Amino acid sequence: MAAPALKAPAKREEEILAAARRIFREKGYHATSVRDIAEAVGLLKGSLYHYIRSKEELLARLFEGALEETVRELRSVAERDTSAADRLQEMVRVYVRALTANLDAVGLYLREWRSLPAPELARLDARRRAMRGLFRQVIADGTRRGEFAPGDENIAALAVIGMCNWLYEWYRPDGRLAPDAIGRELADRAVRSVRA
Amino acid sequence: MAAPALKAPAKREEEILAAARRIFREKGYHATSVRDIAEAVGLLKGSLYHYIRSKEELLARLFEGALEETVRELRSVAERDTSAADRLQEMVRVYVRALTANLDAVGLYLREWRSLPAPELARLDARRRAMRGLFRQVIADGTRRGEFAPGDENIAALAVIGMCNWLYEWYRPDGRLAPDAIGRELADRAVRSVRA
Repeated sequence: MAAPALKAPAKREEEILAAARRIFREKGYHATSVRDIAEAVGLLKGSLYHYIRSKEELLARLFEGALEETVRELRSVAERDTSAADRLQEMVRVYVRALTANLDAVGLYLREWRSLPAPELARLDARRRAMRGLFRQVIADGTRRGEFAPGDENIAALAVIGMCNWLYEWYRPDGRLAPDAIGRELADRAVRSVRA
Repeated sequence: MAAPALKAPAKREEEILAAARRIFREKGYHATSVRDIAEAVGLLKGSLYHYIRSKEELLARLFEGALEETVRELRSVAERDTSAADRLQEMVRVYVRALTANLDAVGLYLREWRSLPAPELARLDARRRAMRGLFRQVIADGTRRGEFAPGDENIAALAVIGMCNWLYEWYRPDGRLAPDAIGRELADRAVRSVRA
């Protein structure tokens, strides 16, 4: 156990997260033990606890990394100086790209968030609300400019996010359409769904 | 144990399903044991197995009852002799009503279908495909008639179903909008999302 301990902690954490992601996918989250993950990275279970507190924390971190990056990207699109339709279209593409690239983490999170510890859940909820807020804000802006039809902006945002999120049930990496093609189709439908 | 055994089997099964639905919601599906359900209806665990094979089967039956009824209703709307827009609008309303009325079963199913036995899963998959097929068929019909814009009809159907299904994550029975108001909003957005 001496050699692995020499690795930089950040690198070791990356390894642990990658192993957790893979084993959760292969065995299922509930059937996976912390020991399984420790063994996959060549650590004793006790040593793994230097890096993580629990299986639930691993799940939260897997999802959080992807979500944080996505919110940042969505914000930069939402703040552009272009039409609301262009921004919404691009936001859906960005979001679909993020969903298809993080399918395991998204699916796990949506099935298992109820079992997350309260602090992790609160942090993730805040990010999800921020994300929803960005969609709502661009939709509201489009309505003010007369680009979009008046309506319930909250439901409009949830409808757009929902049509994207549902990917996690039907998207297959080896399926008929590549992520970018799906992104274009859904972006087009999202803009139509709100357009005046 | 004599009195409960005199109940008609169909009535007893209803009771068992209702108890399972309630206990799954209260304790969570994974934390619920067959014994918990047996106790709630006043049976010994062994006697419960006269009515059900497993916890997974209970989950499948909870969801299947709701889905079967919904597919029947959607089919009768899809076959009406009205515009495709009118039919799609009404289908979304029917579907939203069904989702909000069966929120527990839908949520459970979407989280847990991976743990269902193969025969149950195959049966439910067939019904889900039938449901998706009805949406796709009405969208394709609208495109042929020039009511809807050409596009990928499969993705269009998945987008509409997705914006509805996502309800299971955000809808609250005590929330701001009643199911019918949400149904109208989403039906309007669904028709816009495909309209020419």
